[in-house]
Amino acid sequence: MTDLAAMSAQLYARGWMEGTAGNISVRLDAETALVTASGVSKGSMTSEDTVRVGIADARPVGSDGKRPSAETSIHTALYQVFPDCGAVVHAHPPYATAVAALAARRGADVEEFVGLEIIKGLGATDKVLIPVFENHAEVPRIGADVAARLTPDAPPALLIGAHGATTWGPTLESARNRMECLEMLCRLRLLIERNT
Amino acid sequence: MTDLAAMSAQLYARGWMEGTAGNISVRLDAETALVTASGVSKGSMTSEDTVRVGIADARPVGSDGKRPSAETSIHTALYQVFPDCGAVVHAHPPYATAVAALAARRGADVEEFVGLEIIKGLGATDKVLIPVFENHAEVPRIGADVAARLTPDAPPALLIGAHGATTWGPTLESARNRMECLEMLCRLRLLIERNT
Amino acid sequence: MTDLAAMSAQLYARGWMEGTAGNISVRLDAETALVTASGVSKGSMTSEDTVRVGIADARPVGSDGKRPSAETSIHTALYQVFPDCGAVVHAHPPYATAVAALAARRGADVEEFVGLEIIKGLGATDKVLIPVFENHAEVPRIGADVAARLTPDAPPALLIGAHGATTWGPTLESARNRMECLEMLCRLRLLIERNT
Amino acid sequence: MTDLAAMSAQLYARGWMEGTAGNISVRLDAETALVTASGVSKGSMTSEDTVRVGIADARPVGSDGKRPSAETSIHTALYQVFPDCGAVVHAHPPYATAVAALAARRGADVEEFVGLEIIKGLGATDKVLIPVFENHAEVPRIGADVAARLTPDAPPALLIGAHGATTWGPTLESARNRMECLEMLCRLRLLIERNT
Repeated sequence: MTDLAAMSAQLYARGWMEGTAGNISVRLDAETALVTASGVSKGSMTSEDTVRVGIADARPVGSDGKRPSAETSIHTALYQVFPDCGAVVHAHPPYATAVAALAARRGADVEEFVGLEIIKGLGATDKVLIPVFENHAEVPRIGADVAARLTPDAPPALLIGAHGATTWGPTLESARNRMECLEMLCRLRLLIERNT
Repeated sequence: MTDLAAMSAQLYARGWMEGTAGNISVRLDAETALVTASGVSKGSMTSEDTVRVGIADARPVGSDGKRPSAETSIHTALYQVFPDCGAVVHAHPPYATAVAALAARRGADVEEFVGLEIIKGLGATDKVLIPVFENHAEVPRIGADVAARLTPDAPPALLIGAHGATTWGPTLESARNRMECLEMLCRLRLLIERNT
Repeated sequence: MTDLAAMSAQLYARGWMEGTAGNISVRLDAETALVTASGVSKGSMTSEDTVRVGIADARPVGSDGKRPSAETSIHTALYQVFPDCGAVVHAHPPYATAVAALAARRGADVEEFVGLEIIKGLGATDKVLIPVFENHAEVPRIGADVAARLTPDAPPALLIGAHGATTWGPTLESARNRMECLEMLCRLRLLIERNT
Repeated sequence: MTDLAAMSAQLYARGWMEGTAGNISVRLDAETALVTASGVSKGSMTSEDTVRVGIADARPVGSDGKRPSAETSIHTALYQVFPDCGAVVHAHPPYATAVAALAARRGADVEEFVGLEIIKGLGATDKVLIPVFENHAEVPRIGADVAARLTPDAPPALLIGAHGATTWGPTLESARNRMECLEMLCRLRLLIERNT
């Protein structure tokens, strides 16, 4: 599936794209990507609500008047760092967002998950370190931080404090699968800690 | 979508309109609005289960025998205060209702949300103050409080202690989007506080 | 809707009828009721998976070989006590079951809900006292307790310690509406207490 | 239903098969079983994404190139121990996984559930002891532990520390029903303990 509208509807149905939040993209070629447009509910968007953007500058290619997602610079930073990255999912799932906010509060720039089987879904076997980025109202600063900090051997997921989570992979399905695993990891973290 | 039945079914499916609770409306013109009827499950209502009411008095216009929602006066108060308000959603989502009840218990008349990205969905950038109203068994008193307290620069959402939440906007979709953001904010509040 | 299969599927989809648990019924006339059969998943039962039973003795009428739900005696006790009762829903929703188990642990035979707006859905205005029954492996003892304790002025809902919840009303929809309100009340109770 | 794809989609829709995790199987005859293939999302797999394996060695029968689930050895161990076992469900439901992780942390090799009505769905009347297995990155070790420890009178469910849960039964529906009951038991355990 490279259909951004169908995948957006799926993620919206899980409650991970509330209001008009959340955005997804697929790489079209070495220089461009297709990203969801700004300001639309992901539960009812159509294939018209997408914008072609340049990977180098996060700006629209051509001029059909639609604005790309305000968070496009996070997507393009990932396409720049990871040559094999074919798709990006940025969402606000509740447990990952809470874990990100808690990490930011204690000043952590990484969240460590050890021993849970589901970390295999993030390409790890025993332990995975998910980077936590500072949230900025001005999103391009987040994108710049991502491009500056991540190296090609990073795990395919990141958290943004008090904001949400981003995952990526060769395909849109793999990026979604990783978001599912990250959200479950964070849900388990909160469930387990609260009962310890 | 100005279809009250379709939107009601959507909100019911999320578990935000339990029993026959919850009601939504759209403005028809400067003087009247269409509101869901009283006493029907929002999961199976049809377009017949709606009543035209006067914005000035919250009373049915004409006489087809259907009673408007008991909470119509909250809707009409909002149409009076906000000339651009085109639709109102009143629901009982679990996290917003719990936050409203907790605020009421400690006597707070406002709930403050700072720093979470999703507050952008309520038109804020860094901080939003959501008013908390006292619950009254006699609903017109809530409507009167709303009309007396809110000013046109208020954020598009309010909480009612031990009762629920109300959001509004130019369209039914925007009012729903804001309810989604408010419920997520409250969910995050409870998740984060419990683990701090 | 008097369609037991459709209503069962709806309640199953909410996660309130796990395994083969949960059962619903409608009154057919003064002497008989139709109840879901024993041992079937409520997510895939058909109208064939129902049994006609006598209200006086909770036994099958006729002999098509199907066994009625093991909890039929709770249903028939309610039809005996409440002449206007037209339908009964017995389910295991998570929050109501947890509240019932916590009440049973502290030896309470009633659970009190005060002030939450959603109690209106149980016919109350300010306060509702939901009776809590002791669970017995032998279900007819629960039915006998219900018949012995409840009077026609009781609210339309009861909890069974470490077991689940039962609601009733003139129609299957009203019994379902009340289960929704009871589960939300219990959910709010747990959310609010945990954060107080 | 012996349709692995339809049952997988059902379990995925509940959020119990995140990423490509989770796997299910049905016994074909005394020597072989059909198991879901490795590395596919259970939300979109088709009947093509299944592999026939030997019960004695957990290896594919024939060579169509598809790899069976990495956890096939857990399934085949169960078919070996329980001659009447016709189907196995292995999943990562959040509450059962959290309970398994908490049990593993305190070094418990069994989780006891007493008195909750829903344990009837696991064939018990008053008490059920669910074995907890140690998680191993190398899954065949889990399968070997299962074959070594379980006896034919064991309840039809097990937990794997920091990993997930497995249930089984004569049919795929019964294995699913039991997973539903196990997950509800674990959910109630966490809800009740947190509020005690």
